[in-house]
Formats: sequence, C-alpha cells, structure tokens
Amino acid sequence: MSVISQNWLFAKKFEGEPKNEDFRLIEEELPPLQDGEFLARAEYLSVDPYMRRYMMNLPEGSVMVGGQIAKVVESKHAAYPVGVRIFGHFGWRTYTLYNPDKAKEIERKPHVLFDFGSLPSSLGLGVLGLPGNTAYFGFLELCAPKEGETVVVSGAAGAVGNVVGQIAKLKGCHVIGIAGSDDKCQWLKKLGFDHAVNYKSEHFLEELKKAAPKGIDCYFDNVGGTITESVIRLMNLYGRISACGSVSNYSSGPVKVQDPQHDFVIKQLKMEGFIVSRWRDRWMEGIRANLDWIKQGKLQYEETVTVGFKNMPKAFMDMLKGGNTGKAIVKVDNHSKKG
Amino acid sequence: MSVISQNWLFAKKFEGEPKNEDFRLIEEELPPLQDGEFLARAEYLSVDPYMRRYMMNLPEGSVMVGGQIAKVVESKHAAYPVGVRIFGHFGWRTYTLYNPDKAKEIERKPHVLFDFGSLPSSLGLGVLGLPGNTAYFGFLELCAPKEGETVVVSGAAGAVGNVVGQIAKLKGCHVIGIAGSDDKCQWLKKLGFDHAVNYKSEHFLEELKKAAPKGIDCYFDNVGGTITESVIRLMNLYGRISACGSVSNYSSGPVKVQDPQHDFVIKQLKMEGFIVSRWRDRWMEGIRANLDWIKQGKLQYEETVTVGFKNMPKAFMDMLKGGNTGKAIVKVDNHSKKG
Repeated sequence: MSVISQNWLFAKKFEGEPKNEDFRLIEEELPPLQDGEFLARAEYLSVDPYMRRYMMNLPEGSVMVGGQIAKVVESKHAAYPVGVRIFGHFGWRTYTLYNPDKAKEIERKPHVLFDFGSLPSSLGLGVLGLPGNTAYFGFLELCAPKEGETVVVSGAAGAVGNVVGQIAKLKGCHVIGIAGSDDKCQWLKKLGFDHAVNYKSEHFLEELKKAAPKGIDCYFDNVGGTITESVIRLMNLYGRISACGSVSNYSSGPVKVQDPQHDFVIKQLKMEGFIVSRWRDRWMEGIRANLDWIKQGKLQYEETVTVGFKNMPKAFMDMLKGGNTGKAIVKVDNHSKKG
Repeated sequence: MSVISQNWLFAKKFEGEPKNEDFRLIEEELPPLQDGEFLARAEYLSVDPYMRRYMMNLPEGSVMVGGQIAKVVESKHAAYPVGVRIFGHFGWRTYTLYNPDKAKEIERKPHVLFDFGSLPSSLGLGVLGLPGNTAYFGFLELCAPKEGETVVVSGAAGAVGNVVGQIAKLKGCHVIGIAGSDDKCQWLKKLGFDHAVNYKSEHFLEELKKAAPKGIDCYFDNVGGTITESVIRLMNLYGRISACGSVSNYSSGPVKVQDPQHDFVIKQLKMEGFIVSRWRDRWMEGIRANLDWIKQGKLQYEETVTVGFKNMPKAFMDMLKGGNTGKAIVKVDNHSKKG
C-alpha cells in the first residue's frame, strides 16, 4: 500500500507575473513510513507574496514552498500522534512524509496546532498563525504605538495588514489603511479602521494627508516603494516604521524614490525590518492574544478560500494581483486515493 | 560710531550646483548695542552640506545660514562678557548684534566655548563642536558598535565621517571608509581606518565586499542613494544604520534603488535618522570625550581652511564638490573698520 502525493512544481522561472505555464502538477509515490516519521494529509494550504521571490532562488523542478495545515494520518513519532492537526512548511503537496527531528532549521519544525475551540483550523494559516503573529509582534514591538497616535498600514487588506490595523484600534490609535481597491477600503472601514485610502486613486497623497491631519507616528509597511515614500513624507518627528514586506516590488523593477533619506534624517525616523521568527520564543503569546481578542469579538477575520488543490496556481496568482481580502488559502477538496 | 558687518546673501535659488552668481556680498550698518545684547566678531565660519538645501526654503535675499566661532567685542549681557569666544548660528556675517535670551529655538542659543587648552578655537566648528558630537552620539548611540564588528562610514573624509571612523577604531571595530578620491582614501588609512574605498572606482562594490569579508554590522551614512544601497546589500543580520545625511542627493534628482526594502526585511536591519540636537542635554559629554581622545593622541583632526571672508562662496562650493579633507572652514582675515 503506497500513498500518492500530488505536488505542484516550480516548472519555469517567473518572468514578470507568474503564469499558468510556470507550474506543473505531478504525482509522487511516497515510500513506507520509517521510525520517527509521520504522514500528514494537507487540509488547507497557504499562498503568500513571499513565495514568488523565494522560488526564484530555487532550481526549476522544485516543489513550490509554503505552509499548510495538515492532519497526521499515520505516525511513528510520539509527539505527532494520528489525528492531530499540525502546521508545517511542507510546500504545495497533498501528502507529506516527515521526520520532524531532522528539520534543518528550528523555526521550520512543524508544530501541533493550539486548540482553537470552535474556530476553523484554517485560522492557523492566518490570524492564529504566522500572519497573525507577524502583525502582533511586528507592530507592537517595533512601532511601540501609544494611545492617540496615528498609525498607517500599507497592504492593509492583506493577511497581516488587516490584523495590524485592528490591533492598532484596540490600542486606541487613529488608524488609516492603504489598499488597492474601493471594495477593500470599504471592508477595512467595516473592520473599524478610521480611514481607508485607495493607493490607485489619482489624489492618493492628498487623501492620505486628509486622513492624517496630525501627521503619521507609526507605519506598518507591507509594500515599500512609492507608497512608502508618500507615507514617509507625512511622518512626524520620531516616527517608527516596521518594515514587514516589499510586495510592491516583487514583480517590478527598480523604483524611483525622491530622496526619502532627507526626510528620514530631519524627522529622526526609525525603521526596522523583521522576520517574525525573531519572536519564536514568545510564539504562543501572540496566538493566545489574537485568539482572546477574537473570542471577545474585538478582532475579526476574513479568509479568501479557493477550493481545490488543482487551483493552487490560480489562488497564488490571484493573491499576487490583490484579489484576496484577508488571508488567501486553498482548501483541499479530495485526496488521491491510497493505492 | 557704528559697526559695519559684511554679509553674504542668498541672491538666487540654486539650480543644480551653486554658482558664484547665486551669492551677493553686502555691507550692513548695525544699530547701537541694547541692554541684553552683545556684539560678536566672526573669527571662523563653517561651510556645510546642509546649507544648500536649507537655503532653498528661504527667500532670495536672506543671509546665508551657518555656524561661526566669534569673539565677543562689546557686551551688555552678563553671560557673554567681552573677550569670550562663542559658537553661534549667526550666518555668513562678520559682525553680529545678538540678544541670546530671544533665541527662537533653545538649540540655536549661542554658547561660550569650552576651554580647549592649546588647541585652536576653530575646532569648535569641527571635532570639538557639532560635527564631533554628531559623530560621537550618532554613531555610538544608534549603531551601538561592539568590539570586532565591521563598521562602514560613507562620506568618511568629511567633518563627521572621519571622526566616526576613528571612534570606531577606538572601540575595537574593523573600519572601512568610503570617500570620493584616492587622496582622501590615503588620508583615511593614515588616520587608522583598516580600509578605504573610492566610490568612484569602477569596481566599488567588489572592493567594498573584499574589505568586509565578514559582512557589515554598522553603517554610518552621510550620503544615502546608491552608495547606501550597495552597503545595505552587504549588511549582516540585525545590522544597524545611523542615517546622518543625504549629501549624495543634495544636488541630484531622484535616484534609482533596487528594492533595498527586501534586504531590509530579510536581514532585519534597523535604520535611524537623527539630528544631533537630540542629545543637547549631554552636549559637553561628547565634546569632553573627543577632547580627551585628542589630548591622548588617539583622535586626529584635519581642517581645510580657506582664508578670507570674501571667499566663503568658493569654500562652500569646493566643499560641496568634495574638495575638503576633514572640516571645511573659512578664516576671517580682516574686518571692516568701525566707522
């Protein structure tokens, strides 16, 4: 009896935006389970902006990288018994045979999901997982927001950004979200953002200025590029920038910036880049805080769910084009039979 | 009896590099001294990169801004008795009538020079003044260098940069200076820099890489732009950047940067802009530390002195073109007679 995994491969280096032809679906027959291993069946898979750039450093033919929520269906490892749900960096595959003690990097080790109560396990890819903790730690630790301050979030309708904005509201800040469509802006206001500005608007800078009459104290930056340049212009003395991502440049070439260094110096701004694994020792603190806020009705979540493992490239490409509101995930509908 | 001051005016908005015609020398007859005022005669005047941009926000016809070392020659203010030497932000003028209690901003209040012993008072414009403190606080407080770390300084042959590099050596760091000529690079090595790289070299990035085999931990940035982009590429995890200036962009238009945000995020860099007045409460600590190091022979200084108040525009334009090594100052040779 063998298990067949379906895997999506990185078939061709992306040129500009990823296209259908850049991906290839294959079937892989997995070997029998060894001591110390478990077999996990994917339930939800994540599609994220970082994947685009990450794959460009891997050879064509590699399995697409990514996190998934999976259920352990066979096990020869005591810490991962049959039936538990786990989060693992297994890539775009339906079945994974894995020895967790051989994980190359400690932060890549799969972990058993925290008990979310009645909430769906898919949240382990979003608000109760890496994006949620990215928002929690990256915003609170690096921006150190104070009550009454003005906070701007770019990529605000994304998996991380919407949580940052909601946490900022919880902390008593005046919160402005930047997003790429009027629908997204409306959604942000439903979540409690004070203002939401569409960066595609012709009058983006003026609208941003109007939304931040006292200037900007904290900026959680998911995008970089010209949007960031506009925000920096409006920042106040001793403003703090948490640099989480650079989505705006994933697909494009060099951008033109008008000497943001000068603003940086005279306003004595501080900017810090981060990767959330920096806080891995405090991981459960973030999950628990977000979970508590959800249970108290203070933190809302939304997922853009694409059904069907076969649709992973489509979900990924849609997400890169900004088609998602909240976390973009793929739900596995049916699994290839065991042979 | 009245006093005539010679003043250099900002005659025309700079277009590109400042030119002779952008300045105009006038004579101003000063009114009699009032209670609470003193009359100061300029001895040394400073020319600095910031002046170029600063003037662009002032109307044509304004006196050029800048600091000077002056001697109090008449006084109706107890704290500024006749004969003391002071540092004041009086602008490009040979005589100044001033009421220090009416200084608009506290940091602009003139101060009586610390006793430098046998050292020249002109150092109060350089290593024992604002540039020296900019180096001392801006580097030590924001880069927090550790022994054995690799430190890069851009604009290293300038008034601030050369002091930063020497302090970094005093702290046991591996120090690389970036400057714009081979002569300057040689001078930096004489000061004790481990390496000096000419950014005009065709192989700048490779030379920088070779000089920093362990990567870069701290970067003291006087320039911004493409030089900074190159340094960021070579920085190590948790690198610190102290952003002091953006000389490279004072005269040029937008620069092209190749997504430095991505490096910023994955290396979790921290960058902080600053203006040295932030540390005005600790001002004397910096002056004293640099003075002690000079007396101990551990900190060297160099000045590029232009003689003659009439040559101020030339000194300024030369400095902007990188003609100076160490602090660029102008020594007043003769004063207009009292009428």
